[in-house]
Amino acid sequence: MKPKRFALTPGEPAGIGPDLCLLLASQAQPHPLIAITSRDLLIERAAQLGVAVDLLSVTPDAWPDAPAPAGCLYVWDTPLGAPVVTGQLDTANAAFVLDTLTRAGQGCLDGAFAGMITAPVHKGVINESGIPFSGHTEFLADLSQTAQVVMMLATRGLRVALVTTHLPLKDVADAVTSQRLERVTRILHTDLREKFGIAQPRILVCGLNPHAGEGGHLGREEIDIIEPTLERLRSEGMDLRGPLPADTLFTPKYLEHCDAVLAMYHDQGLPVLKYKGFGAAVNVTLGLPIIRTSVDHGTALDLAGSGRIDTGSLQVALETAYQMAETHL
Amino acid sequence: MKPKRFALTPGEPAGIGPDLCLLLASQAQPHPLIAITSRDLLIERAAQLGVAVDLLSVTPDAWPDAPAPAGCLYVWDTPLGAPVVTGQLDTANAAFVLDTLTRAGQGCLDGAFAGMITAPVHKGVINESGIPFSGHTEFLADLSQTAQVVMMLATRGLRVALVTTHLPLKDVADAVTSQRLERVTRILHTDLREKFGIAQPRILVCGLNPHAGEGGHLGREEIDIIEPTLERLRSEGMDLRGPLPADTLFTPKYLEHCDAVLAMYHDQGLPVLKYKGFGAAVNVTLGLPIIRTSVDHGTALDLAGSGRIDTGSLQVALETAYQMAETHL
Repeated sequence: MKPKRFALTPGEPAGIGPDLCLLLASQAQPHPLIAITSRDLLIERAAQLGVAVDLLSVTPDAWPDAPAPAGCLYVWDTPLGAPVVTGQLDTANAAFVLDTLTRAGQGCLDGAFAGMITAPVHKGVINESGIPFSGHTEFLADLSQTAQVVMMLATRGLRVALVTTHLPLKDVADAVTSQRLERVTRILHTDLREKFGIAQPRILVCGLNPHAGEGGHLGREEIDIIEPTLERLRSEGMDLRGPLPADTLFTPKYLEHCDAVLAMYHDQGLPVLKYKGFGAAVNVTLGLPIIRTSVDHGTALDLAGSGRIDTGSLQVALETAYQMAETHL
Repeated sequence: MKPKRFALTPGEPAGIGPDLCLLLASQAQPHPLIAITSRDLLIERAAQLGVAVDLLSVTPDAWPDAPAPAGCLYVWDTPLGAPVVTGQLDTANAAFVLDTLTRAGQGCLDGAFAGMITAPVHKGVINESGIPFSGHTEFLADLSQTAQVVMMLATRGLRVALVTTHLPLKDVADAVTSQRLERVTRILHTDLREKFGIAQPRILVCGLNPHAGEGGHLGREEIDIIEPTLERLRSEGMDLRGPLPADTLFTPKYLEHCDAVLAMYHDQGLPVLKYKGFGAAVNVTLGLPIIRTSVDHGTALDLAGSGRIDTGSLQVALETAYQMAETHL
C-alpha cells in the first residue's frame, strides 16, 4: 500500500510540542509525517535539547511520498510572529499557532494529508492575543464548516466521547439539549463504524446529574431529555445503554460490554480516562470530514527544552491516526 | 482494650442490605455489632438465602459488651411499616428506614455506639413516600444538628471528599461559595488529623470548570472564589494544592503526594474513585460528632435474595469505622 502523508502540528511553540517532534524523529515513521512549524524554532530547540535531527524542508509544490529516514524530520516551514523564549508564552505567536492548524486542516481537506496529529496549544495565550479560541476541536470544526463535532479520548480498553466540551460548568446543563445529544450520539455511532471499523457499536451513556438524577429527585434532565432521545435512537437500531450513573458506570460490569462511553461533560468522563490511560491516551475529533488525533496532555511549559518528556501519548496519537486512515470507509 | 459497640443499618429492606448483614454474620467481628432492622425481615431473608444465622435480640436496656460469635448476629428489632417483598420498593417502609437511621445515629450521639455503618437506602422511594430526603449524609447532619458535613469516599491509596454532593448539576456552580469551600476544607483538614491520624494532611483541590477554568477562559469561579479561599487557608498553615484540572489531577504525579483530593462535585470525583476501588470503597461522613461509614454501592434490588453479592465494600466500611474509632482524638 502506498504510504499516506500525515501532518503534525507542534502547537504552542514555547511548550513541549517542538521537543516532541524532535524526539520522535529518532525513529522512522511508517508514513511521511510533516511537521508544520518554524524551522528556526526547531533548530534552536534541537540545540537546547542537544539532539541532532536533519530537518528536510518540504512545501506543497513537492510533497514527499516516502517516510523520512530515522534521524530526519520533514518540515513545512511556517513563520513565527516573534522569536520564541522556551517556556514563556507570547501573544505575538498566537496567530502563528493558528496558521499551523489552518495549514494542516486545509491540507487534510484538500487531500494532501490523510490526517493530522496535534500537539497541545495554550488556549489562554491565544485568547489573550484577542483571537477567540476554545480549542483545536472547535477550530477544526469551523475550518471544515462542520456544524457539530465530537471530542473523544481513547486509551487501551476505554473510549470516552463528550456531549459538551470546553464550557464553564454552570453552562453545561443548558447545553445538553435533545438536539445536541442526538447529533453527538449519531456522530459517535457513525464514526465508530466508519473510522474504527466496529460494525454494531455498543455505547454506554452517562446521566447528567449525580446518580443519573435518581428518578428525578436529583434533576430532571434524564427524564425530560436524555431518556426520550436515547429511546428514539434505539428505535433506529442503535445499541445505547443508559442514562447510567457516572460514578458506577466506569466499572467492569459495564465497561466489559461497551465500545465507547458517552459522558455529558468534560470532567465527568475524562478524569477516569486519564487515570486509566495516562501517558498513553489519545484525543480524537469525530464528525470532521478529516482524521485528527491529538496528545492528551498540556503544553508543559516548565518541561520545554528539558528533554525530560515522554513521547508515549504522541506515539499513540500517531498510531491511532494511521489505523483510522486504514479503516476509513 | 474493651470492645466498642457499633451499629449497622441494613437500609432499604427490599434491597441487598439485609442479605449483607446475614452473610457478614458467618464470621465473628472484633467488636459487638448490632444490626438495627426488623427481626422478621432477617428471618425471611435468611430462609430465602438458605443461610442459618442465629439472631440474638438486644435492646438499649442491655447492650452486649462482647462480640457475637460466628454464625450469630445481634439485632435491635425495629418494626416494619409493611411486609417486605424482596426486590420491590414500598413507600410504606420509608419511615421504617429512617427509624433505623435515627436509632443508630442517636445511639452514637448518646454514647451507646462508637460508630455506625450503613448499607444503602433508596432515596427515590423515601421521597415518593412524602418525606424529603437527600441522603444518609444530610439526614445525619440534621439529626446531630451539624451545620456542615462532608462526604468522603475512600479506597486503598485514594480519598476523595466533595464540596457539593447530591445536587442537580445545574445548581452546582452556585453552590460552590467561598463560605462552603472554606467550611468543607476545614472539616476535611480537621478530620484527616483527628479521625485518621494524619498530622499534616496534604490536600489536592480540583477546579470547578474544565481545565480549572484555564485562566478564566472557561469560567471564573477558580479566580473569584477558589483561589482566594485556598490562599486564605494556606496562610493558616494548611497544605492545599490547587485548583487543579480534574482530568489531570488523578495521575501519579499528583496523587503520590496527597492524603485526599477535594472535588467540587459528585461526578467530578467519584467516577475515578469507584473505578479504582470498586468493591472495596467506603463512604465516610466527615464533620459529624459521630463516626459513620457506609458501603459505596446501591440497593441492587435485582440481586436481593439471590446470594450473588459481595460483602467486600461492607467489610471495608466496618474496618474503616473500627480504625477511626481507635484513632479518634
